[in-house]
Amino acid sequence: MKKIKVGIVGYGNLGKAIEEIVVNKDEFELVAIFSRRKGLKSKFQSHFELTDDLKKYKGIIDIIFLSVGSFSDIEHLSKKVACDFNFVDSFDTHKKLKDYVLTLDEVAKENQKVTLSAFGWDPGLMSMIRVLFDGLSKDGGKAMSFWGKGVSQGHSDAIRRVDGVKNAIQYTIPKDEILRKCKRLYNYNLEDNEKHDRLCFVTTNAGADKKKIENDIKTMQNYFVGYDTKVNFVDEETVETMQKKMSHKGYIVDNYKILNKYKTRMELKLELQSNPYFTANIMIVGAKIVDRLLEENKFGAYTILDVPVKYFCDEEREKLLETKL
Amino acid sequence: MKKIKVGIVGYGNLGKAIEEIVVNKDEFELVAIFSRRKGLKSKFQSHFELTDDLKKYKGIIDIIFLSVGSFSDIEHLSKKVACDFNFVDSFDTHKKLKDYVLTLDEVAKENQKVTLSAFGWDPGLMSMIRVLFDGLSKDGGKAMSFWGKGVSQGHSDAIRRVDGVKNAIQYTIPKDEILRKCKRLYNYNLEDNEKHDRLCFVTTNAGADKKKIENDIKTMQNYFVGYDTKVNFVDEETVETMQKKMSHKGYIVDNYKILNKYKTRMELKLELQSNPYFTANIMIVGAKIVDRLLEENKFGAYTILDVPVKYFCDEEREKLLETKL
Repeated sequence: MKKIKVGIVGYGNLGKAIEEIVVNKDEFELVAIFSRRKGLKSKFQSHFELTDDLKKYKGIIDIIFLSVGSFSDIEHLSKKVACDFNFVDSFDTHKKLKDYVLTLDEVAKENQKVTLSAFGWDPGLMSMIRVLFDGLSKDGGKAMSFWGKGVSQGHSDAIRRVDGVKNAIQYTIPKDEILRKCKRLYNYNLEDNEKHDRLCFVTTNAGADKKKIENDIKTMQNYFVGYDTKVNFVDEETVETMQKKMSHKGYIVDNYKILNKYKTRMELKLELQSNPYFTANIMIVGAKIVDRLLEENKFGAYTILDVPVKYFCDEEREKLLETKL
Repeated sequence: MKKIKVGIVGYGNLGKAIEEIVVNKDEFELVAIFSRRKGLKSKFQSHFELTDDLKKYKGIIDIIFLSVGSFSDIEHLSKKVACDFNFVDSFDTHKKLKDYVLTLDEVAKENQKVTLSAFGWDPGLMSMIRVLFDGLSKDGGKAMSFWGKGVSQGHSDAIRRVDGVKNAIQYTIPKDEILRKCKRLYNYNLEDNEKHDRLCFVTTNAGADKKKIENDIKTMQNYFVGYDTKVNFVDEETVETMQKKMSHKGYIVDNYKILNKYKTRMELKLELQSNPYFTANIMIVGAKIVDRLLEENKFGAYTILDVPVKYFCDEEREKLLETKL
């Protein structure tokens, strides 16, 4: 059996989840984990390297899992990585995704590489369902997405970058009444900020100006502006306890009437005990897809919207037509 | 605006639904409806032709909707149609689908045509979700499909072919307790016949042997063998009233544990007021996909498993990356 040689860049919650799944799968060989931090160790006896030394592994590692935070230098890093490696990432800054993918596409094609981006559960799995539902319901319906209750890693990161904040966690919570309305009504459409509340728990550094912090959070562009945001100041222990629970939920509903007559409802529901492990789960399937695309010499930058669903299963197409169609 | 010139072959419930949607869409021009029956008329002033005269429209019609019953000669017919036309069908005999598609692929490529088969809601939309879920949950989970309560057109057709049967309708009904179990349990797997009951309402011809009819139904291979089947003999009016209601439901659940630890649940739910109109809805999106594949000279026989989801929306890829990813 052929083994896919993989590396992991970034060793936070997501990197650790990828590591644990990969070492439990025969199809993969984990060559090394790359981090900016020195002296890391793991109970799986993984080999660690500094991210700066990635280039040494060109030709040795087939596929990289890019699991660094979107807030960091992933845009810069990914371009460099795509010169030497194929990779999967779960980059999740929706507003930047288009440019990100188009830039990568040039680099990947030039270097005969395959990249698969934004390949998590949202963006990723839920994006795929949005496009599918919106395509079917385009005469009136609209795929409406709900997230939570669950922690948004991106928003928690964003708060931690506010001056005076020591640690923070942010819960995205669907507005109950709106959710019920969206399930019930047809040809209805709301923006994300009309559907969700944002609940923040923040620990501050000594002497910090809490009023200013609260204001800095609530007025943060692309993250909190337009949302009902609540900021709670709590102690460090409370935040740390909250950070251990990593469950999340996703929901998409699209109610529409065909020819303005026939009620049609489509729903997707996800319930996840572990957000990072589910993202890792998807990215690992993504690595198999990258491998398939490489076999077919289909170089370039892909997203979940570009990949036929047959690639998600290991079975050959004929077998899928026979057993799952 | 470019208009896609379409034809409809087969004028039952599905053909009629396709007709009504298509005449209400600017992107399509309905050239003709083809049937084996003579003298058909429609309130939409559609032009009717005999199916035998289809060849006359070669070069005139871009895409055909094949909406004849799977029980009829669709396999023979589709091969002939693929020589002269691009088409979409919702052929639903799961057991024959593989050979059907592979045969069409040769014909379509030879004649520079695109065909899109089994493109309804099951097979079709639900097949896509099964493959997606099974790909993600392959270490323990299994996408389990439920249908109903709703009428199975295929099974109703099958009963009508039994000697002595005048008219019939068949409801597929999920077993309540099993459904609840499947939602609750993890890494669980059942066959379709363990999950559903089949409830039949039958009118017989005068003097028919009801015992024999009931036995013929219950022992029918590929349709009823292995199922809990109940046969009720009723009058013609009862069946006809039932045939006017065309609602249906579809449900897929896949519960699994990542690394045998993290509970993960994925669900798809469909609630349809009209089964034929939803199938028509999907097939019409399919025609747009065929059109896109033709523009890219990608000739051959496709299924929903082979088509990237980006093709479901009219927007260009860049726009989708920007707005829906």
